Amino acid sequence: MSQVRIQPRLPKGMRDFLPAEMIKRDYVFGIVREVFHLYGFEPLSTPVMELRETLMGKYGEDAEKLIFNAQHPGGKEELALRYDLTVPLARVIGQHENVLTFPFKRYQLSPVWRAERPQRGRYREFYQCDVDIVGVEGMAADAEVIGVVTTALRRLGFTGFQVKVNNRKLLTAMGQFAGVEGQQLSDLYRSVDKFDKIGADGVRDEMIQRGVNAQAVDRIMALLVQTDPGADKLGVIEDVMGHLPEAAAGVQELRDLSAYLNNAGVPSENLDYDFTMVRGLSYYTGPIFETVITQANMGSVSGGGRYDGLIGLFRKESLPTTGVSLGIERIIDVMDELNLYPEGIGGTVVKALVTVFSPETRAESTAIAAELRAAGIPTELILQDKKLGQQFALADKRGVPVVVIAGPEELAAGTVKLKRLRDAVEVSVARNELAAKLRELLG
Amino acid sequence: MSQVRIQPRLPKGMRDFLPAEMIKRDYVFGIVREVFHLYGFEPLSTPVMELRETLMGKYGEDAEKLIFNAQHPGGKEELALRYDLTVPLARVIGQHENVLTFPFKRYQLSPVWRAERPQRGRYREFYQCDVDIVGVEGMAADAEVIGVVTTALRRLGFTGFQVKVNNRKLLTAMGQFAGVEGQQLSDLYRSVDKFDKIGADGVRDEMIQRGVNAQAVDRIMALLVQTDPGADKLGVIEDVMGHLPEAAAGVQELRDLSAYLNNAGVPSENLDYDFTMVRGLSYYTGPIFETVITQANMGSVSGGGRYDGLIGLFRKESLPTTGVSLGIERIIDVMDELNLYPEGIGGTVVKALVTVFSPETRAESTAIAAELRAAGIPTELILQDKKLGQQFALADKRGVPVVVIAGPEELAAGTVKLKRLRDAVEVSVARNELAAKLRELLG
Repeated sequence: MSQVRIQPRLPKGMRDFLPAEMIKRDYVFGIVREVFHLYGFEPLSTPVMELRETLMGKYGEDAEKLIFNAQHPGGKEELALRYDLTVPLARVIGQHENVLTFPFKRYQLSPVWRAERPQRGRYREFYQCDVDIVGVEGMAADAEVIGVVTTALRRLGFTGFQVKVNNRKLLTAMGQFAGVEGQQLSDLYRSVDKFDKIGADGVRDEMIQRGVNAQAVDRIMALLVQTDPGADKLGVIEDVMGHLPEAAAGVQELRDLSAYLNNAGVPSENLDYDFTMVRGLSYYTGPIFETVITQANMGSVSGGGRYDGLIGLFRKESLPTTGVSLGIERIIDVMDELNLYPEGIGGTVVKALVTVFSPETRAESTAIAAELRAAGIPTELILQDKKLGQQFALADKRGVPVVVIAGPEELAAGTVKLKRLRDAVEVSVARNELAAKLRELLG
Repeated sequence: MSQVRIQPRLPKGMRDFLPAEMIKRDYVFGIVREVFHLYGFEPLSTPVMELRETLMGKYGEDAEKLIFNAQHPGGKEELALRYDLTVPLARVIGQHENVLTFPFKRYQLSPVWRAERPQRGRYREFYQCDVDIVGVEGMAADAEVIGVVTTALRRLGFTGFQVKVNNRKLLTAMGQFAGVEGQQLSDLYRSVDKFDKIGADGVRDEMIQRGVNAQAVDRIMALLVQTDPGADKLGVIEDVMGHLPEAAAGVQELRDLSAYLNNAGVPSENLDYDFTMVRGLSYYTGPIFETVITQANMGSVSGGGRYDGLIGLFRKESLPTTGVSLGIERIIDVMDELNLYPEGIGGTVVKALVTVFSPETRAESTAIAAELRAAGIPTELILQDKKLGQQFALADKRGVPVVVIAGPEELAAGTVKLKRLRDAVEVSVARNELAAKLRELLG
């Protein structure tokens, strides 16, 4: 061990999570895992590093510049840190399909790495939280992954949120309808995608500038911006573009999806069509979804859709696949902002702190802590001799709800004193009732 | 998305964990986390990548060759994937000490990377699982971390295990006693460390070859190999080397440790002194521990000790620190070998599979699945139309315990049929008793 002292620093855009924060994160992770299990998604884990060839050519050039490379001295493999959890899933299907059961439903809750310029709320290491269903063509699968999102958000305490739904097939049809293709089609998507930023007029202007026929632009704009809340938005699309097979298929998928969601009891007020939504990744092929928290001004906390082609990059024939990613980092930010954590989450995992009155009573306090632990109560034991006042201060600072005191008086009487710090309630209990009484005080 | 199909492969020495395995891992992780909380250890998370300068110079040259480097195109920072969880902890203390409460007790359960030659049971990505206490000099802290190990192993179902304890101070004293220092002292440690492999005679021969005085060798060997089970092993050491301050301090620490463990109720049959144990890492300064599973021939599943100097590499003055690492990967291997998992762990998270009798009854089956999920029962819904027999086969293949059937007959009668696959028990229940009855069947 060379004894050179260095300045302790983190890499750019990366974070430590100290206990108070980790406890909140673990709470959120726990709830979403529970919901994934309720919906029959099974856990999967893939390595942090993949072969570079596995990742490259999947995300587009701009994204791939953000991928971290890795190697070890003398190593021959070109490695890279995963950029998302979707391409590793596709690799897993190609590699292990013989031992998997289909439809294959998996979740993965793991960090990914992207060398983006760090800014508020954007980090180079962050968690993704994905559910995907491999092997089902029908919209029943898409309804399942949307159900996961709405159930998870509700269980986390969100009341105002909306799943926005579109279909890539409708976007393709709009291009056909406007008579644009190739690069011009990509440009059209890019314009539509900016709807939130530049508004209807901005999108219209861009399309005109890009040389789309003015009449077609008007008709597309009428589809994109449907403001009549009572109207059958899909019906409007069908009336205008229903003669195009892509449009007809896209409308049918969204109708099926809506019916499945209805059967599954997903409230319709949590759903809305948004035909201006494009989503960045190029691999989507069918319905796409995004979820916005309407009770906070926080943008999208979940995104996903159907991508029936991706697995074909690792397998002779592709398999129909759909999934969503919960934006777990942003969800945690909104939870913090709205303070949606139940009481007792955060600060510490410890429920009781056992004080040590004096060195002579340490043995007895150690035994008491052992008893509480055996009874299943997370318990801190004072490990250094110090004044009782300092021990209480420590409990207070760490946020431990109940302090346990066993001084000479208590020990002589065969009792223990409990003090709840929140309201200074103090009780004296017989030693054999300690754990039960402590649980009572904890509520 | 460039459409080049590639062979799906993993980097050397790295693993996917498919659901059946992940469920078992998550079970083990869950139990150890619970035990960490019982002992008042708080969760901490650090990034996968550290600055290279943070890691280098801590582990010794041979180890540092195994560290994976990382960078992103155009990035200026030299990064590396963490090699263990101890150096990141030391960095965290140096960096965040102002917002931490001391003594600081944390656990971390995270993967680390080492580019070792892959072999059976050795991987390049594997999980470490550490508890450490920062800021306590006394042996009360060392007793806590040993208590964590014995409690975790018991809760996982192990019955035969033994914590072997030694003290680096005793090793240092042996060197003084033998009159060796510098490189010769390191050689002496290296010989002692090989005790398990080359036996007492081998160690003796090596020491003689290394030029240690023959009489000193005899006296050291007598200390190392104490075979009298009734003897006070520490007393023997004290008699021989007690005049050396390092030896006296080491003996006193182990006596204190033993007393604390006794007070905490750690059974003395789970403890033993092993003066031949050295442990590889150079940063240990006091007591060191290893745990072996005696009910399986599996070597050490936990190691640790006191390292009072390490944090000084990130901070003006060091802080006394002690901790253990649970060899969680090896623990999982032994759990597999001894089949220590409770019934119902492994295979699937799903408890009920809701069949779809025909396309016409899909809506009703979807509603039933939604009901069961709302009642907290992990439920799979058949998403594709297929024959009932195939749906049962799927439940069977995946290991789902109970199948739910709602055909036209049941729907007309307002009932649902439940079938437990293990013993083919079949019951018909009223729809409003579905969840309760299903729970009963699950036991």
